[in-house]
Amino acid sequence: MRSDVTHFECEIAEGIATVRLSRPERKNPLTFDSYAELRDWFRDLHYADDVHAVVFASNGGNFSSGGDVHDIIGPLTNMNMKELLRFTRMTGDLVKAILGCGKPVIAAIDGICVGAGAIIAMASDLRIGTPEAKTAFLFTRVGLAGCDMGACAMLPRIIGQGRAAELLYTGRSMSAEEGEKWGFFNRLVDADALEAEARALAVQIAAGPNFAHMMTKTMLAQEWSMSLDQAIEAEAQAQAICMQTTDFERAYRAFVAKERPVFEGD
Amino acid sequence: MRSDVTHFECEIAEGIATVRLSRPERKNPLTFDSYAELRDWFRDLHYADDVHAVVFASNGGNFSSGGDVHDIIGPLTNMNMKELLRFTRMTGDLVKAILGCGKPVIAAIDGICVGAGAIIAMASDLRIGTPEAKTAFLFTRVGLAGCDMGACAMLPRIIGQGRAAELLYTGRSMSAEEGEKWGFFNRLVDADALEAEARALAVQIAAGPNFAHMMTKTMLAQEWSMSLDQAIEAEAQAQAICMQTTDFERAYRAFVAKERPVFEGD
Amino acid sequence: MRSDVTHFECEIAEGIATVRLSRPERKNPLTFDSYAELRDWFRDLHYADDVHAVVFASNGGNFSSGGDVHDIIGPLTNMNMKELLRFTRMTGDLVKAILGCGKPVIAAIDGICVGAGAIIAMASDLRIGTPEAKTAFLFTRVGLAGCDMGACAMLPRIIGQGRAAELLYTGRSMSAEEGEKWGFFNRLVDADALEAEARALAVQIAAGPNFAHMMTKTMLAQEWSMSLDQAIEAEAQAQAICMQTTDFERAYRAFVAKERPVFEGD
Repeated sequence: MRSDVTHFECEIAEGIATVRLSRPERKNPLTFDSYAELRDWFRDLHYADDVHAVVFASNGGNFSSGGDVHDIIGPLTNMNMKELLRFTRMTGDLVKAILGCGKPVIAAIDGICVGAGAIIAMASDLRIGTPEAKTAFLFTRVGLAGCDMGACAMLPRIIGQGRAAELLYTGRSMSAEEGEKWGFFNRLVDADALEAEARALAVQIAAGPNFAHMMTKTMLAQEWSMSLDQAIEAEAQAQAICMQTTDFERAYRAFVAKERPVFEGD
Repeated sequence: MRSDVTHFECEIAEGIATVRLSRPERKNPLTFDSYAELRDWFRDLHYADDVHAVVFASNGGNFSSGGDVHDIIGPLTNMNMKELLRFTRMTGDLVKAILGCGKPVIAAIDGICVGAGAIIAMASDLRIGTPEAKTAFLFTRVGLAGCDMGACAMLPRIIGQGRAAELLYTGRSMSAEEGEKWGFFNRLVDADALEAEARALAVQIAAGPNFAHMMTKTMLAQEWSMSLDQAIEAEAQAQAICMQTTDFERAYRAFVAKERPVFEGD
Repeated sequence: MRSDVTHFECEIAEGIATVRLSRPERKNPLTFDSYAELRDWFRDLHYADDVHAVVFASNGGNFSSGGDVHDIIGPLTNMNMKELLRFTRMTGDLVKAILGCGKPVIAAIDGICVGAGAIIAMASDLRIGTPEAKTAFLFTRVGLAGCDMGACAMLPRIIGQGRAAELLYTGRSMSAEEGEKWGFFNRLVDADALEAEARALAVQIAAGPNFAHMMTKTMLAQEWSMSLDQAIEAEAQAQAICMQTTDFERAYRAFVAKERPVFEGD
């Protein structure tokens, strides 16, 4: 998997990719270019065998300030519908790419996490925050709707419909404490431990059966609109596929030998 | 928007409609007439440009005691299936009308909030309660099922499937404290501050981009049964529409001018 | 309803069936035989008029250790796809049978509740735990995916998407305290009170209108993939059906007579 990206930062080490938005002096806003490059990077990730988990990290004490007002908002006010739809679909495509990349994504969220930044956090599988994390769906503040990049579908499933509605209508900040209580954050840690903690969790998960994790991720996204009967059948098929992996056999042999299984992802 | 209603109370001031059920001495039960008139009023609200948010208030220390036993339950026991279905569809139509009215609805809930009253609370976008609020889905107590007016769809999405199941099977009261902890109430305030607080929240939301709020409301209701991909595409379209409103431009111009945007809802 | 089962334990008394997995010395693992017999038993339960609620109890201080490593995991590693799919569909059929049995199921969970045991807990309508309950979706530990028997559909709806993702990717134990806070457990009680408490709740629910409870259970499962409009129409029909039961009339007559209604389930 390539780490030579231009519009965001990316390091890959020992199967874990760490990505973060750039320009900490502006709290890491998204631009047209970083949207597009992130979308392409996550799309490619689907086919990569050398990355098993992603940490989407903060930078300089903040996660992201969302779409850049000068780079993005200004130009959008001058676009026609065809151009606008091309943009909103590109942002949605980033979410689809994160959801479809086949690897667990762990967001490590410090400081400001707003607008499209909050959406990226939400499209991640797991979220670790710091007590200073301030998450807000600011769209309403710039004259837009809360339904951005899938927010009205994803947020209610993470924190419940009533809480989601409040955040989306008012644009108010969710405190780190609320986020932890409501299930947005899996846990809170101090800022100086944040990235190490997220990385440790990524390493721990990546040491598991990565083909099976990919199936878990796929089904967690797919089953939202299935009936229970359809979901149960879909899982019967998905798990039967996983039962033909060598990792399943490795785990059984390790158990019999009273050893710890070493998974290889196939 | 008309406020001259007969079977419930309605005041409209400064773009905020405050409605409440009548007959506080009976804890504001619903009747055939108030069901029908509320349904029609919320249906009309969809087309009103002079109301931007609704406070569904309590009356005399209670929200609602639900369907009146004498006015409703008695007659129902003598109806044939055609008549029964006409009634249950009318009650469902009230929920559809609240969900489809295009304006944020804030329920201000004090005291008793049971049966169809609890459903109206649930069909609202946001809920502020008092420590004395007692919410119960009493249907089981009158020999009926918990699946009334969409309860089995809405309640699990607000407080989770396990808690919803308990309330619907047992009909027990959810305390205000539980309701706040579980995400049913967005917050609790003292009874004497309740209506002012709900109104202030309504005013704050209504000062935002109301066309965009209408889109948020629409998508929060629509996306429950969409796949994630469908939801993301639906939001790409919805947000592109909002990007062609003047409110979006107003927000940008205010930002550049370092002013506070004044939204006008178009 | 028959209680003469071979591969699990079953007692039926006063309309309440108490079932539990056997072999407490192994923490009550599931076997091919107990899976199949439980599936058949819950399927038959749908047609039984003499059982109104089920307590799925613990045994010897534990709920279940899940699929037996020697009886199940070993043989699975030697199966072809046709055989694997037959197995995963059988396990899924147990979940479908619990969801479709038409009677409220209350899981009483002490100690170990892992793997397929955790799925059975989740497929139950209500869950009472003890402070010692340890619930884990261990699939990842044996090289498999978290999508087992409907887990990716059910768990997010009970505890939220973010918390579900963590448990399914890591296989870590959810403590009893977390489970109560997150809505997995309806409440926690001491181990020596657990079964009595679960039974009392079953008796209380079974004293209600059991035909209506069946409808509540049906709709709680059915509406997950319906649109809100579809759900509201489905409930209009379901509740109209319940309004033609004699239990509805019994409740009304009892109310008028200022008595406590005695429901008979028709």
